[in-house]
Amino acid sequence: MDDLVKAVLAFRDERDWRQFHNPKDLAISICLEAAELLEAFQWKRPEEIAVFLAEEQNRRRVGEEMADVLILLVSLADVAQIDLMEAARSKLADNARKYPVERAKGNARKYDAL
Amino acid sequence: MDDLVKAVLAFRDERDWRQFHNPKDLAISICLEAAELLEAFQWKRPEEIAVFLAEEQNRRRVGEEMADVLILLVSLADVAQIDLMEAARSKLADNARKYPVERAKGNARKYDAL
Amino acid sequence: MDDLVKAVLAFRDERDWRQFHNPKDLAISICLEAAELLEAFQWKRPEEIAVFLAEEQNRRRVGEEMADVLILLVSLADVAQIDLMEAARSKLADNARKYPVERAKGNARKYDAL
Amino acid sequence: MDDLVKAVLAFRDERDWRQFHNPKDLAISICLEAAELLEAFQWKRPEEIAVFLAEEQNRRRVGEEMADVLILLVSLADVAQIDLMEAARSKLADNARKYPVERAKGNARKYDAL
Repeated sequence: MDDLVKAVLAFRDERDWRQFHNPKDLAISICLEAAELLEAFQWKRPEEIAVFLAEEQNRRRVGEEMADVLILLVSLADVAQIDLMEAARSKLADNARKYPVERAKGNARKYDAL
Repeated sequence: MDDLVKAVLAFRDERDWRQFHNPKDLAISICLEAAELLEAFQWKRPEEIAVFLAEEQNRRRVGEEMADVLILLVSLADVAQIDLMEAARSKLADNARKYPVERAKGNARKYDAL
Repeated sequence: MDDLVKAVLAFRDERDWRQFHNPKDLAISICLEAAELLEAFQWKRPEEIAVFLAEEQNRRRVGEEMADVLILLVSLADVAQIDLMEAARSKLADNARKYPVERAKGNARKYDAL
Repeated sequence: MDDLVKAVLAFRDERDWRQFHNPKDLAISICLEAAELLEAFQWKRPEEIAVFLAEEQNRRRVGEEMADVLILLVSLADVAQIDLMEAARSKLADNARKYPVERAKGNARKYDAL
């Protein structure tokens, strides 16, 4: 991950793009790329998605959309001065408190309905 | 990142939630969490966002929304059998080809308008 | 529709909210409300959605989210000086050209793959 | 609006597309089209958006994206058996209760912070 962060920021800085990277437009970009990712699955039933993802070129396309989201998260974390990995660890710990194993096991309900 | 992937999958499997994790609904979740992230910046002008992000509790809130997106990317990568880090490296290499430094420097135009 | 437009703009102007209604944040709002609408169907299989929508209170909730999107479209059309109904008629005519009945009948493919 | 609803449903039924119109995928479509609408404003500052919308061809493009959202709302309302105009009127009445003029005037705060 450290290498990815370095590569993403080097890519940006070599092109002098830091000036365009305001947090609001980066967050908009994350939304738009998340929509493109979702588009890959639109109009497909679960069985069709299994067939779709069995093909390597489709997995590659989906991987590209996921990569766009991840690269933008790294960019936003930098300009907003947020430690993304620490935030993820902390969120997982919160989730573990909200969804104790004994009550959440095999149960898809939201924490406030557990 | 490896540790995060392990923690995300352990969290899921301890709760027996793999059964609910179909790719389409995970992609929907990524969209919804990306929308929540964007909501943090809505109705704010750039100067207001700088002030907003200067406060630690706001950075923490934004970090939580970003963490939700990252955790879901990791979950989707697992069920879709996609190597997320490899996809990100590959996408950065593609972007480097589409946006050569000499033409993209200081220039926000899209690659097809460079 | 004319009555709805009048009611939406009167609601806004009585509260002196025109000053906050810039096109970009209204477009963000449309995205966020569309995400809330989608959330109503998340994690549900087609059969579950049929059962869900058979209940009046669920239809009312979904209707509220759809109403939010429509009200925001009306608000954006006003500040951007766009005739929404005319745009919709014109778009339907374009779609009719892109998807001729004889080729599109019973066929979900995109126009460029017809 | 009645004419638009008739035209949207006639377009769909002439192509025998009712079979593809499940509520979940229509809600996904609304999200994706809302994202395309937002894309028109991405990376633009408020002053740039005013210039952008002063040009008729840009207003037409934005109008097309708004039309896509509206047409999909009409389609979803039909399959979900929701009266969209009634839902909008009812939502406006709710909003009027949540945001009384005397407290909301010139004030962008959310109803629970008024």
